[in-house]
Amino acid sequence: MDRTLYELVGADDRRFSPYCWRTRMALAHKGLDADIVPIRFSDKDLLAFSGQGKVPVLVDGARTIHDSWAIACYLDDAYPERPALFGNEAAKGAALFINSWVDRKLMADIVRMVVLDIHDHCVAEDRDYFRRSREERFGATLEKVVSDRATAVIAFRAALDPLRATLKSQPYICGATPAYADYIVFSAFQWARSVSPFALLEPNDPLRSWLTALLDAFDGLARGVTAYDT
Amino acid sequence: MDRTLYELVGADDRRFSPYCWRTRMALAHKGLDADIVPIRFSDKDLLAFSGQGKVPVLVDGARTIHDSWAIACYLDDAYPERPALFGNEAAKGAALFINSWVDRKLMADIVRMVVLDIHDHCVAEDRDYFRRSREERFGATLEKVVSDRATAVIAFRAALDPLRATLKSQPYICGATPAYADYIVFSAFQWARSVSPFALLEPNDPLRSWLTALLDAFDGLARGVTAYDT
Repeated sequence: MDRTLYELVGADDRRFSPYCWRTRMALAHKGLDADIVPIRFSDKDLLAFSGQGKVPVLVDGARTIHDSWAIACYLDDAYPERPALFGNEAAKGAALFINSWVDRKLMADIVRMVVLDIHDHCVAEDRDYFRRSREERFGATLEKVVSDRATAVIAFRAALDPLRATLKSQPYICGATPAYADYIVFSAFQWARSVSPFALLEPNDPLRSWLTALLDAFDGLARGVTAYDT
Repeated sequence: MDRTLYELVGADDRRFSPYCWRTRMALAHKGLDADIVPIRFSDKDLLAFSGQGKVPVLVDGARTIHDSWAIACYLDDAYPERPALFGNEAAKGAALFINSWVDRKLMADIVRMVVLDIHDHCVAEDRDYFRRSREERFGATLEKVVSDRATAVIAFRAALDPLRATLKSQPYICGATPAYADYIVFSAFQWARSVSPFALLEPNDPLRSWLTALLDAFDGLARGVTAYDT
């Protein structure tokens, strides 16, 4: 196999990058294997060959692609005979909107609840970098940022209403079977559960059956990693 | 032509139902003509034949379909040889999410800014019904509901960030050309401009070029009606 995915890793082999999860699920959806190379924040010079310093990076034969969205587009273009992540331009366009909604709304909400947990699950040598860069971004200590999460989660759960409404009439965002838009949204939850015991959803949230189905997908690919059972 | 669309009308022939605009744009996209029958809130018994009381209702030959989402699905199924509103199941699924996001987030925000303007543009005999039903829903007078809109619009504009991010890399939500997901989001803005002089977007908002393109689409279908130039 001449395919390699570089992805972020924390302590105890925790794979907590949501962007890397988008690529992992996309590769599984296409039925493509890849060697997984774990990278710590402090290992980023190992990615210099890709011309930048962020994961995921996919090396597929002679091609090197970085950025989860670019990788998904590449996979559908390069392997059109395999199950589609998008399938047509309108699906890809709407998925890009969902990608933006998850990045700018969902994950912005989630990080304020779990950023201290991410810190605690970084490998020891990554923690100072992580704390310094995130505290600079938030203008507050990580402890302060997450201190109101019991309240913040209420607004977060309300913001998921459009998702609940969608999944009332179909099992997946993409319809009868999951595709890339599902993996985008799923990645935000997988990110949180990989580092945090804090429950983002109430026990009876109808979103849980969708989440469970994606944890079970591809022989339990996402369920099989070290994570909290939230 | 044996096709009729029943849609909501206010004073001065204002067509302010966002759901009806979704159907109008969808019909234009498919290249299908329809006789338009305007209905006031107080005319709703004219819709009894459809088994319910809400617009839009499309009568297409022997078929009667209500609910904008059901109509869009019907049109793609019934006229597969004409330009697709969705095109595949993943696109339809993601569009349903966008439909839910617009209904539950965007329009929930917008109505709190323009509900008094909607009232003022209802035909005289509809105003009492409109005020009573909406004040009951909000638990406050319409004047009170809109009183903080100068502040509320700031959060609303921020919530549009995922849309701006999407339209940075493609001219329409659905890619190079507009399709149903574009009409869904557009309908919320068309709703507001049909009754309210309040500017939802700043003058230099990059969303304006997308909005302009949709106002110009189909020979200026949406621009051609009575509305405010916000």
